[in-house]
Amino acid sequence: MAQHQKILTIPTSGKALLRITQKIQAIVAESGIKTGICHLFLRHTSASLIIQENADPDVLKDLENFFSKLVPEWETYIHSAEGDDDMPAHIRTVLTHTSEQIPIAQGRLLLGTWQGIYIWEHRQRNHHRELVVHITGE
Amino acid sequence: MAQHQKILTIPTSGKALLRITQKIQAIVAESGIKTGICHLFLRHTSASLIIQENADPDVLKDLENFFSKLVPEWETYIHSAEGDDDMPAHIRTVLTHTSEQIPIAQGRLLLGTWQGIYIWEHRQRNHHRELVVHITGE
Amino acid sequence: MAQHQKILTIPTSGKALLRITQKIQAIVAESGIKTGICHLFLRHTSASLIIQENADPDVLKDLENFFSKLVPEWETYIHSAEGDDDMPAHIRTVLTHTSEQIPIAQGRLLLGTWQGIYIWEHRQRNHHRELVVHITGE
Repeated sequence: MAQHQKILTIPTSGKALLRITQKIQAIVAESGIKTGICHLFLRHTSASLIIQENADPDVLKDLENFFSKLVPEWETYIHSAEGDDDMPAHIRTVLTHTSEQIPIAQGRLLLGTWQGIYIWEHRQRNHHRELVVHITGE
Repeated sequence: MAQHQKILTIPTSGKALLRITQKIQAIVAESGIKTGICHLFLRHTSASLIIQENADPDVLKDLENFFSKLVPEWETYIHSAEGDDDMPAHIRTVLTHTSEQIPIAQGRLLLGTWQGIYIWEHRQRNHHRELVVHITGE
Repeated sequence: MAQHQKILTIPTSGKALLRITQKIQAIVAESGIKTGICHLFLRHTSASLIIQENADPDVLKDLENFFSKLVPEWETYIHSAEGDDDMPAHIRTVLTHTSEQIPIAQGRLLLGTWQGIYIWEHRQRNHHRELVVHITGE
């Protein structure tokens, strides 16, 4: 068994869901690994890593709307020094995901037809988000 | 280190939590791997993979009730063409899990006494759900 | 590739977020693995494993407050025989995480600057929580 590790830096500019499926698939191809697991780990506590529908962009708008209502920025939080969107961003991250793992077969991610991989930025200001891609297999 | 990959197809008929612990344990046994990790990955965005209490079936009813209220189907969503239960199914999936990983020791999943593995179908109509089981170890 | 598996027992005494980052890093060091993945798996359905901000303790209070409101203990649940805090604990676990996986480079967990690893106890009475730490790599 072999392993291949790489850190991707993804610039974000405000709240949005950024699809990164092709970037991850390119690292899988570069690794030369045909059968294995692709581990993804986001090094942040105010942005999420999720797997969601890749077809209708309205799904992404509904997701953002739902979370805006579930974790309101106008609510009072004790931790408020870093801005109104910071504590809600932490809560959204706990409610969603920081790591994912996708099996690989024949050199390709075994995602379902409708699955895409996304970085979900929860903060308003610009950030550089680091994602560790770690592939193990043969 | 060795690896063993298999895709399970699980038929579902409406909203329900289906326990699949024994099916996964059988694949672990078949792999011959004694110490390692069992990676599970569900290839869908409108059904979840969760680990939950395996004893009292009332827990499963309360889970379904809680999520029905948290993500109501009577709410208005932009993405509505695929039915009232589709966008709520996507949101439920983001709030729960698509992948899990369970350590293996002495050829058995290291689940706690009360833990079971479930596919959680969020759609009303019949589906075939694909779960990738990927085991690595020795 | 090598692997190293250990079960940590963590005593808890009531609802709290307990930081365990140093304990996990010590097991990574002990394993001798320099590049790889650290898989964490909590063997319970009424406590969570999360990765969250490690700096301001107010973040942890806000997290607890948010989940207390989202999953109220005064609500009526069908599963109630084990106490008012039991069913809410199961729901909180499904909304958060049971397993995580953190890449390792140069013998250290590749956590972001602000990330800490926590056991989140959701029950009032004392417990011993078991966490499986399984490291693979070279």
